[in-house]
Amino acid sequence: MTGNDTKAARAADDLTAGGWALPAGAVGTHRFTPKFEAVIAGLQARLTALGGTEGPVWHPPVLSRSLIDRAEYAESFPHLLGSVNAMDEDADGVVLAPAACYPVYPGLADGTVEEQAHFDVAGYCYRHEATSELGRFRTFRMREFVTVGADEPVTAWRDGWIERAAKLFAELGVAVDIVSATDPFFGPGGRFMRASQLEQDLKYEFVAKVSPEDPGTAIASANCHKDHLGARFAVRLPDGGTAHSACAAFGLERIALALINAHGDDLNDWPALAAALPTPGSPA
Amino acid sequence: MTGNDTKAARAADDLTAGGWALPAGAVGTHRFTPKFEAVIAGLQARLTALGGTEGPVWHPPVLSRSLIDRAEYAESFPHLLGSVNAMDEDADGVVLAPAACYPVYPGLADGTVEEQAHFDVAGYCYRHEATSELGRFRTFRMREFVTVGADEPVTAWRDGWIERAAKLFAELGVAVDIVSATDPFFGPGGRFMRASQLEQDLKYEFVAKVSPEDPGTAIASANCHKDHLGARFAVRLPDGGTAHSACAAFGLERIALALINAHGDDLNDWPALAAALPTPGSPA
Repeated sequence: MTGNDTKAARAADDLTAGGWALPAGAVGTHRFTPKFEAVIAGLQARLTALGGTEGPVWHPPVLSRSLIDRAEYAESFPHLLGSVNAMDEDADGVVLAPAACYPVYPGLADGTVEEQAHFDVAGYCYRHEATSELGRFRTFRMREFVTVGADEPVTAWRDGWIERAAKLFAELGVAVDIVSATDPFFGPGGRFMRASQLEQDLKYEFVAKVSPEDPGTAIASANCHKDHLGARFAVRLPDGGTAHSACAAFGLERIALALINAHGDDLNDWPALAAALPTPGSPA
Repeated sequence: MTGNDTKAARAADDLTAGGWALPAGAVGTHRFTPKFEAVIAGLQARLTALGGTEGPVWHPPVLSRSLIDRAEYAESFPHLLGSVNAMDEDADGVVLAPAACYPVYPGLADGTVEEQAHFDVAGYCYRHEATSELGRFRTFRMREFVTVGADEPVTAWRDGWIERAAKLFAELGVAVDIVSATDPFFGPGGRFMRASQLEQDLKYEFVAKVSPEDPGTAIASANCHKDHLGARFAVRLPDGGTAHSACAAFGLERIALALINAHGDDLNDWPALAAALPTPGSPA
């Protein structure tokens, strides 16, 4: 094992010793105990309150290949996509969902959004991660708030979520750095757009420690997609322009790890607003 | 579309009209609304009470290929297994979990169960189903109670779950037929074992209508595995024999569909013990 693998194994062992998780065999996978799931359920309820919704629509862990092709995901992140292959191949191929939000767009595709549309979704995501440090999940649950509409209100909505998420993490006692980030989201030409992406402040990440030796892991993000997805799915504005979109995404397992790292294994030691999270018997 | 496809589409449309689900694109997948998820969360809580546990351990939707190979799943159900392929192939291949229970066995493998072991687990499962009728989910959540030990107490435990599940469905107002069934669980020679499997009463299914035109769908099952998995994972009894195992498995989405089919779209019309199920804001 490399030094990093040893650290990852130690961090995973700590999680088991704390009663949060059990080994699951494959790299980047865990089995989560009722104690851990109660925290996840509490986070879900808190996010529902924060979003002012009735709760998320749960999206399936697999998506049609054609959906993800239209979103051009594989052109941006070819190495992370998990394709599902079965003995009996057919035309209706599926891939593992790389993010929770994609099934929102076909419902808007080739149409016009008359007014700004809002969505609250959740689902299991898969990313074929190459490294094994704790928190580098291959499979994880993501809660996402999504909006689709005109550029300015979409950006204002995203900025509102930056404030709301910052307040949430402060209440939960999780120290976060809010950093302007880039990713190759905008397709094969993306690497040439990084400077521009930073200048435009399209992506903010909430970075926290998910284990003692963690230099920092993104536990949530708030992102403007510009008209990238609007163009892919031919979503129009009433004035004929292409719709913009934005999302606020919360990595539920990573937030739980950040809470555990911040407050320890005994829920009695957690500060009041964090200790109020666990919702027993309601696995999320 | 064939007649069956038309029926499947109509049944899915009814689910959408009732506020339970939205189309998700791929065959055998759905997006579930907070209303549907509240029923799932309530079922989970009821099953936790029935099992007398603290709640399930949540297993990941993907498992290591080596685990599923050791269980010889692909030799029994090659057509249903979903393998995950990524651009960057490596030795640590993963498959989509075909059932929730498999990660239990490596923890017992190559060892001795000193006394009967009990597990309560849940997780997303995938089966590459070829047909599209409502309830033929490609991706779904399964709750499983599992025991591993000597033949007689394992069989007695399984029989206890048949009674307990029958009582649960009666309380929920879901009419079920309890039928002795077979499946090719026991490997490539399984088809020659069907008569024997029936004679031995190894598998009971709880069959209910999940839509008006459904002739009957298995919504739960209670199964003795004999020493099939004990032998695959080299789990021994204190006397040196091979451990037996059994499970009681509940298909959460199918049970929810059976409830909706039985009681309709308005929770106010549901009988008291079923109407008490929904746990709002706690997506399972």
